[in-house]
Amino acid sequence: MTLQERDKKYLWHPLTQHKLHPEALAITKAKGCTLTDENGNEYIDAIASWYTCMYGHCNDYITHRVSEQMQQLDQVVFSGFTHKPAIELSEALINILPKNQNKIFFSDNGSTSVEIGIKMALQYHFNHGNKKNTLIAFEDGFHGDTFGAMSVSGLSVYNGPFEDFFLKVERIPVPNGKNHDAILKTLKVLADNNEVAGFVYEPLVQGAAAMKMHNADGLNQILNFCKNNNIITVADEVMTGFGKTGKHFASLHIETLPDVMCLSKALTGGLLPMALTTCSQKIYDAFYSDDIAKGLFHGHTYSANPLACTAALASIELLQTQTIQDSIKAITASHENFGNRVKNHPKVKSIRQTGIIFALDLDVEMQRYGNLRDKLFKFFMDNGVFLRPLGNTIYIQAPYVITNQELEKVYRVIEESLSIV
Amino acid sequence: MTLQERDKKYLWHPLTQHKLHPEALAITKAKGCTLTDENGNEYIDAIASWYTCMYGHCNDYITHRVSEQMQQLDQVVFSGFTHKPAIELSEALINILPKNQNKIFFSDNGSTSVEIGIKMALQYHFNHGNKKNTLIAFEDGFHGDTFGAMSVSGLSVYNGPFEDFFLKVERIPVPNGKNHDAILKTLKVLADNNEVAGFVYEPLVQGAAAMKMHNADGLNQILNFCKNNNIITVADEVMTGFGKTGKHFASLHIETLPDVMCLSKALTGGLLPMALTTCSQKIYDAFYSDDIAKGLFHGHTYSANPLACTAALASIELLQTQTIQDSIKAITASHENFGNRVKNHPKVKSIRQTGIIFALDLDVEMQRYGNLRDKLFKFFMDNGVFLRPLGNTIYIQAPYVITNQELEKVYRVIEESLSIV
Repeated sequence: MTLQERDKKYLWHPLTQHKLHPEALAITKAKGCTLTDENGNEYIDAIASWYTCMYGHCNDYITHRVSEQMQQLDQVVFSGFTHKPAIELSEALINILPKNQNKIFFSDNGSTSVEIGIKMALQYHFNHGNKKNTLIAFEDGFHGDTFGAMSVSGLSVYNGPFEDFFLKVERIPVPNGKNHDAILKTLKVLADNNEVAGFVYEPLVQGAAAMKMHNADGLNQILNFCKNNNIITVADEVMTGFGKTGKHFASLHIETLPDVMCLSKALTGGLLPMALTTCSQKIYDAFYSDDIAKGLFHGHTYSANPLACTAALASIELLQTQTIQDSIKAITASHENFGNRVKNHPKVKSIRQTGIIFALDLDVEMQRYGNLRDKLFKFFMDNGVFLRPLGNTIYIQAPYVITNQELEKVYRVIEESLSIV
Repeated sequence: MTLQERDKKYLWHPLTQHKLHPEALAITKAKGCTLTDENGNEYIDAIASWYTCMYGHCNDYITHRVSEQMQQLDQVVFSGFTHKPAIELSEALINILPKNQNKIFFSDNGSTSVEIGIKMALQYHFNHGNKKNTLIAFEDGFHGDTFGAMSVSGLSVYNGPFEDFFLKVERIPVPNGKNHDAILKTLKVLADNNEVAGFVYEPLVQGAAAMKMHNADGLNQILNFCKNNNIITVADEVMTGFGKTGKHFASLHIETLPDVMCLSKALTGGLLPMALTTCSQKIYDAFYSDDIAKGLFHGHTYSANPLACTAALASIELLQTQTIQDSIKAITASHENFGNRVKNHPKVKSIRQTGIIFALDLDVEMQRYGNLRDKLFKFFMDNGVFLRPLGNTIYIQAPYVITNQELEKVYRVIEESLSIV
């Protein structure tokens, strides 16, 4: 029996309606930018397996470091205990994070990092004697699939069964260069009720909303308003973190820094699950008390897993090398050229880019998970490129180690796909 | 600077009030049942690092398998794709799970596995056209720290800042052999409202409630009631799974099987974070439809991470060996002897045991995180044993590979501790 056949027996895949999409492609090998399936077909991983393996699959440096760590210390309770991989990671991170970030809290995935961010915002006020019950978030934001994270996600096409159980969230549009005054006016009304605990947002690029990009100056005005009105700002950089936007973090493009940041995905270079919620000293201080109940009573068993910390530390070392920094610049420039090449194509509605994140909207009506989207996905795969269109948006977020030749192939296949839609 | 000193600079530890507990002990090495700190002191890990590393720290067989996998396939999107480690793990699991469990859904920690269980229960009814808004859970249950998981946790001493945002949950006491009729009466009243979606419970042993144990026959009556009243039962076996209770799963001690099960901790043998939510065909079928919106739109980026799957598969192989099964029996018998040895001590209020989980309540008033608890913890550590008392409860949940000599030392240190309380 093939792996694909065996898969169907017991596995329930994420974000999948199995009756409509019964076939899962079995991948048997991954190296650099190449995925190999069980029939020996190869695919360029042009979305870095959901934006994770930025230094290439099975990166020799990262896997070597993790193999060594596996011989030394695999796991220990992180409450009352600590270890070198977590400490070294914290030092390396603080060195590259926005300069107001000063404390690091561990969890296992983007959803939990956002849950912790929300809890930090709510309890920050609670510990100061103010019970606030409202969060602000962007329309079309996506922050994860647990109840707290779902609540702040505006992209809730499929949240029907759960939305009666969500936190109270008010939504604002993303800043587009023209609506800033209107947004600030809305914020003022919300803030006047004095019930807003925090603002949760994806800075500059909204990933699941199909790489929707917004105005940095407008975002700065929003963050500045929050800062002046004691609204805790929580930057969800799960997708944008670690170089994607051309700087180490999207928040570094914006003058007003966030109080809290959520990180995952590329954090461990695509090797292992881990997430972080970082924060400023102001947030930490609100929990630091002689009153035990003012502490943050949140914890996951594998918090700060030493192997995941090691993978993250090795990844951050790679991120800071000249080679990777040069690649980020080269890919960014290459995407700009490609954008110019396709932007006037009659099937192309618009293009946009932030750092190595490139997106192209087709001038075609498509459902998020509809047939035309599936046809496009199949075309890419048949041509040896793993791209995952979201509705009528085709986007690239390839590993930093992609070669010019591989990148050119990705561009060519996208151009060819324009004739089938 | 020592690791302990460096730790304080940037790390925020889980479940920790840093002002009251500023010192974290730096562990530099773990092998088998032994943890070594940065000063070379050794400790027997008598709680298996929160019940995870049951085959010993840095287990050679598991780490070898994971090292091999790291050369082959590190990570791939699990939506639309699959891989051998996930498939083999699913086959191995179905072979040992209660026989009604037929589908496996991945996530990264116990909290998310419970969130998924709750979503399965709510959406099961929703997909059948019934919107139900209530869950039932045990008093003093603990199911995790994300908003959905916190909602069903009755052990909410520190949930103050968040409890306005919880799902609607009705609580019932655990069955104690005398209150079964009363519980069933309560359940009947709740069920008559026809708003109960599911019942979330830790079968037989409530971990965070300090290894509180309850009556199997009473639990069976509750599960049977739920079955007859279309209430989805979600067994949280995050702590009890994989041999702890003497059988592979606590649910195997009870005639009426759960609809949904949550697994983590020992799943990966203490190497890597991963969790599973498994379910019966009945649950899966409610989501299988031509209507895409009836699917379970939940997913985490590293779902079914191939390295974690490999660690889990190797762990399940070890669990089924004669050596480990014999160890489980031997530790169980050894705990029984120890129980008889201490149960009449004037400082011992009561003892209890399920499989290799042993707990002893001191006849002393103690706060969950109070000074006497800290004194006891320090005594154990000073004597080379890592035990983590919860209030006035001392419990053992050592790796299956603990030697007789190590186990005897754990017992001896516990006996000695009775003279300091």
